[in-house]
Amino acid sequence: MITADLKGVYPFVEENEIFGSRCGAAEKAHRLLESGSGEGGEYTGWFRLPSRIGSDELSEIEDEGKRIASDSEVLLVIGVGGSYLGSKALVDMLYHENGTSGTNIVYAGNGLSSRRIVQLKEYLADKDFSINIISKSGGTLEPAISLRIFYDLLTEKYGTGRADARITATTDARHGNLLNMAKERGWKRFVIPADVGGRYGALTAAGLLPCAAAGADIRAIIKGAKNASEAYALKSADNPVWQYAASRRALYDKGFTTELLCIWEPQMRWFGEWWKQLFGESEGKCGRGIFPASLEMTADLHSMGQYIQQGPRNIMETMLSVCSGPDVIVPAGKAGKDGFDFLEGQFLCQIAEKTLRAVTDAHVSGGVPVIGIKSDAMKFEGAGELIYFFELACGISSYMDCINPFNQPGVEEYKKNMFRLLGKPGF
Amino acid sequence: MITADLKGVYPFVEENEIFGSRCGAAEKAHRLLESGSGEGGEYTGWFRLPSRIGSDELSEIEDEGKRIASDSEVLLVIGVGGSYLGSKALVDMLYHENGTSGTNIVYAGNGLSSRRIVQLKEYLADKDFSINIISKSGGTLEPAISLRIFYDLLTEKYGTGRADARITATTDARHGNLLNMAKERGWKRFVIPADVGGRYGALTAAGLLPCAAAGADIRAIIKGAKNASEAYALKSADNPVWQYAASRRALYDKGFTTELLCIWEPQMRWFGEWWKQLFGESEGKCGRGIFPASLEMTADLHSMGQYIQQGPRNIMETMLSVCSGPDVIVPAGKAGKDGFDFLEGQFLCQIAEKTLRAVTDAHVSGGVPVIGIKSDAMKFEGAGELIYFFELACGISSYMDCINPFNQPGVEEYKKNMFRLLGKPGF
Repeated sequence: MITADLKGVYPFVEENEIFGSRCGAAEKAHRLLESGSGEGGEYTGWFRLPSRIGSDELSEIEDEGKRIASDSEVLLVIGVGGSYLGSKALVDMLYHENGTSGTNIVYAGNGLSSRRIVQLKEYLADKDFSINIISKSGGTLEPAISLRIFYDLLTEKYGTGRADARITATTDARHGNLLNMAKERGWKRFVIPADVGGRYGALTAAGLLPCAAAGADIRAIIKGAKNASEAYALKSADNPVWQYAASRRALYDKGFTTELLCIWEPQMRWFGEWWKQLFGESEGKCGRGIFPASLEMTADLHSMGQYIQQGPRNIMETMLSVCSGPDVIVPAGKAGKDGFDFLEGQFLCQIAEKTLRAVTDAHVSGGVPVIGIKSDAMKFEGAGELIYFFELACGISSYMDCINPFNQPGVEEYKKNMFRLLGKPGF
Repeated sequence: MITADLKGVYPFVEENEIFGSRCGAAEKAHRLLESGSGEGGEYTGWFRLPSRIGSDELSEIEDEGKRIASDSEVLLVIGVGGSYLGSKALVDMLYHENGTSGTNIVYAGNGLSSRRIVQLKEYLADKDFSINIISKSGGTLEPAISLRIFYDLLTEKYGTGRADARITATTDARHGNLLNMAKERGWKRFVIPADVGGRYGALTAAGLLPCAAAGADIRAIIKGAKNASEAYALKSADNPVWQYAASRRALYDKGFTTELLCIWEPQMRWFGEWWKQLFGESEGKCGRGIFPASLEMTADLHSMGQYIQQGPRNIMETMLSVCSGPDVIVPAGKAGKDGFDFLEGQFLCQIAEKTLRAVTDAHVSGGVPVIGIKSDAMKFEGAGELIYFFELACGISSYMDCINPFNQPGVEEYKKNMFRLLGKPGF
């Protein structure tokens, strides 16, 4: 299971405080989530999701994933925000850029770049593809535009009837334009439960269908999340979720207002993007909230390392490392004297581990608190576990600051302006 | 040329202040850079680089790029920090993910992931490839390890002599292990000038050779940079570089301590990474410095938009938009009633432009200052211009805060720990 290492926090916050009063506050927040009696409690469906999602639903997702893998070189996932970040984080984490074991997953509808759309149309021109349109409300501008454009491409390629058999809609069970369109056209449908908000939807069909199409074992992902939901139900200061939430809350109150999630695997870059939405959108309100940023290690040590070491002292880091995969031994330097003969015969995983330790020590000495999180994220179960870990941590952390983590009132502001400028009736 | 729009700044800083005292300070900083008499003045070679780089050197880079494109499906660029971010920003910006017009550019040596190395070895196994090793000092750990590993792969594939003909080393002209190895093995060599630091090296061979191999017109890139170096030599408040530098400095002093570079084209995501290194490593020292983060619009509006609208009021944004490329018209909604019929017949570029305006207005109203930068970055000349624009802005902005933008003393801290843990002699 996931462990939290707080040694890099104690120089900045008393150990007693974290395991005492802060964990007390975490417990209170945890119980609010559990009972659904906190603010926004109607959106805590994700809390029990790993046990609630049924074997039948998983079978349906698996079957549709197999259908897509069998007749499509590409699955075009159309969605934005929570409707793509969860699946992109998972697919990237579990497969590498040279291809998945099933179909290739490509994203659209998460922007307004005409360049990108023109390129995608070219890319898809000579490929068999299917569409998974994901939108809980069915009323978001970017995916709606992309659906219009790529529905045309699909019908040009396959004719209307066969095209409709290649579209899967993941949306609300009862409301919305997308639901109506899906019913009318007979698209295969999956549900984002009403009590699960977009950014908490990675473990619904929104996240799972693209994973299944890519060839992932979605039952193992859910099993990992279920294990996590049981293990982290623990009401004690031994709960690593409490430790993480309590530490970052305590540090925020001491002026550490930016949190850098430092990811020690390049494939987890998009996990960082998912994490930023989860925490940023949940906590950033009422003029408060930890600013979430993410770094890829060790690459970004060579870009942001200077700032972290010697810039303003309002930064905390969360070092997210993963258990080792296939290892590599540093070979002899056959091209000549490079000055690194002392590395010959060392395992790369150990070099990375020592570098993590070296960086942690240097940053802590320099005035940057460091929380260490170790997980087994790049395997199916570990990935499900990690998603659940951070969802729970985010809920607890927000309630500890008296913030409702399940709304996003601020995003309406620009939409009003936008719809007015675009001539939407009624604006 | 590039324009800066400061309307979103004036609600937070008096227009007079920016065009008066702040532009006065920008002028002083500008003259320090020009004369090379400021702190770190020995590293201001980038200032005149666009005029200094000769036609002969460009021809050599072009020839080597052609050689690579003719005999290699992949160019493996081994480098970290400034040795890869410039070329990755340029290559991504100028070509899309479905391939370049020349060879494919793939990066290694910018991390310690054994997974990544194992994957890369698999990926390269059945492909013709060349290596461009980039390191000014020739003494950085990650690229050194990757060079050992991929040199072995190259010699296994081609034999020693033919392998050596497929390696290009971009490094210092006089010093370092990499230079010695390159001489000994007869590798083709390019120079990173001694007076140009890594993060200012995008317009040296470090940035240009991968671009040339990808099929880019590097003379046009340099021409754009040269135009910029002439246009932005202007000593007046009409200089958009001064306007940008003066605005962000004034805002920082008023408590806006985080700058979000919001990029309105997905292909410019890595330009954001380049920008983060440039500003973060230059300004983040002495307990000061604007925290640089980047967002891809409109995707990240659906993840960080809530935080920006209603989180702590210490954020400023720089909206970086690019002139339009190929456009797309929103078609009729043939799949059914999606609620977006008012968009039918509108051009996507105009929708994006209106959204940019809507977002800017909403954020400014919500207490977030916005600087608008418009460029033609996705064409060769425009890309060179934009690189130079930000390099100059970074130098001026740092000198305005009495910071030496050309050193990075903080990055030595973790390296000492690391080399000790790894058993490097003398540590």
